Amino acid sequence: MKLYITNKNYSSWSMRPWVLMHTLELPFEEVMVSLDLRPGSAFYQTLAQLGLISKVPVLVLDDGTVVNDSLAIVETLAELYPERGIWPRHAAARARARSLCAQMHAGFGALRQHCPMNVEADLRALGPALLQAQAGVRADLEHLYALWEDALARSGGPYLFGEFCAADAFFAPVVMRLTRYGLPIPAALSPYVQTLEHNAGVRAWVQAALLERQFVPEDEPYRRSASDTPKL
Amino acid sequence: MKLYITNKNYSSWSMRPWVLMHTLELPFEEVMVSLDLRPGSAFYQTLAQLGLISKVPVLVLDDGTVVNDSLAIVETLAELYPERGIWPRHAAARARARSLCAQMHAGFGALRQHCPMNVEADLRALGPALLQAQAGVRADLEHLYALWEDALARSGGPYLFGEFCAADAFFAPVVMRLTRYGLPIPAALSPYVQTLEHNAGVRAWVQAALLERQFVPEDEPYRRSASDTPKL
Repeated sequence: MKLYITNKNYSSWSMRPWVLMHTLELPFEEVMVSLDLRPGSAFYQTLAQLGLISKVPVLVLDDGTVVNDSLAIVETLAELYPERGIWPRHAAARARARSLCAQMHAGFGALRQHCPMNVEADLRALGPALLQAQAGVRADLEHLYALWEDALARSGGPYLFGEFCAADAFFAPVVMRLTRYGLPIPAALSPYVQTLEHNAGVRAWVQAALLERQFVPEDEPYRRSASDTPKL
Repeated sequence: MKLYITNKNYSSWSMRPWVLMHTLELPFEEVMVSLDLRPGSAFYQTLAQLGLISKVPVLVLDDGTVVNDSLAIVETLAELYPERGIWPRHAAARARARSLCAQMHAGFGALRQHCPMNVEADLRALGPALLQAQAGVRADLEHLYALWEDALARSGGPYLFGEFCAADAFFAPVVMRLTRYGLPIPAALSPYVQTLEHNAGVRAWVQAALLERQFVPEDEPYRRSASDTPKL
């Protein structure tokens, strides 16, 4: 299988299936398509060859089937590797894990818009002001923490459903946002955040992201260069 | 099973699992929670009782498990009723159907924003001007039609994957938008649009939507009342 992704520093969508596949040691080849939003760029040409318009991640199966969108990739992998624990074993926990992933997939718009993932950046100076200025970010955090607390109370941790599963992979980019933007994390949830930060897949992703040197203005609302002091 | 939904006239998210369950004749009880966005309303109270914040649809399983978000509901139903054809039978088609649903779930933002579903309204006068004013809507339609054409070319129709499946249920609200806003539909796709419009679940939903009499200003960017002439 080939997993097409884009810049590890910025691409929260790419991070989800990559962290899942890396952590669960599924066999895959990574194809990095660097972000380049100019018309006709290699980025767009590569996607066009797959019959796609503008989105990664994309998983290409051994039979050539093209699966795009992070959530479709997860479900397809769960069918191909039913024994790997991509979803929790118990049906009720599985239904709840899918609920969490689906909510992350289509929701948390304010958090995503105002705190785009930026692994290498130190944006901790912005967090308090962002929180004060954006009611949507406050609401998203409240919702997020309620979901996490509920799942962890049921499972006992250390991951949302006990063992690592797709739901944790879906929230890995959120943990990047919380820590990079210095957003407040309730003490009760701090062990979970630390567990995710120390997860093998997350660490491998972060390590690779830090080696990238591309500054993508479209993903940098708060800096004009990597050495710039971030400002709202 | 209980499916919590909100106003059939407006709720595209509710429409998807409802049309799926109705068309495939899955046993469920519908619980209508009328939209009321005032703090403390019955709408919010009902959701709070389920431990939720503000979103429908929600499926409550017989064991009490709460499944929220349309896509998590579909996957949970597919596990509970594997023989009902919720997803296509062949693995590659299933992966493609999931790709379509996931893209609809997290994408098509411009179409969703500028053409909110409004079953009873005749907004056909707005379509051409909306198309001209909103490049995002044009891009969404182009993307949508490319996805449909690809799926129908592979399956031969009449539905995207031959027989009706979850992907068609996910695009049912889009068909409502196309026809209500008078957006251009390529001739080659017109049979598919008609097939969906005549689908048993879609017809039952539309019939019920037309009996509703609630005007929800938050979902009506182009009218001040149901008898108003729509304006951009």
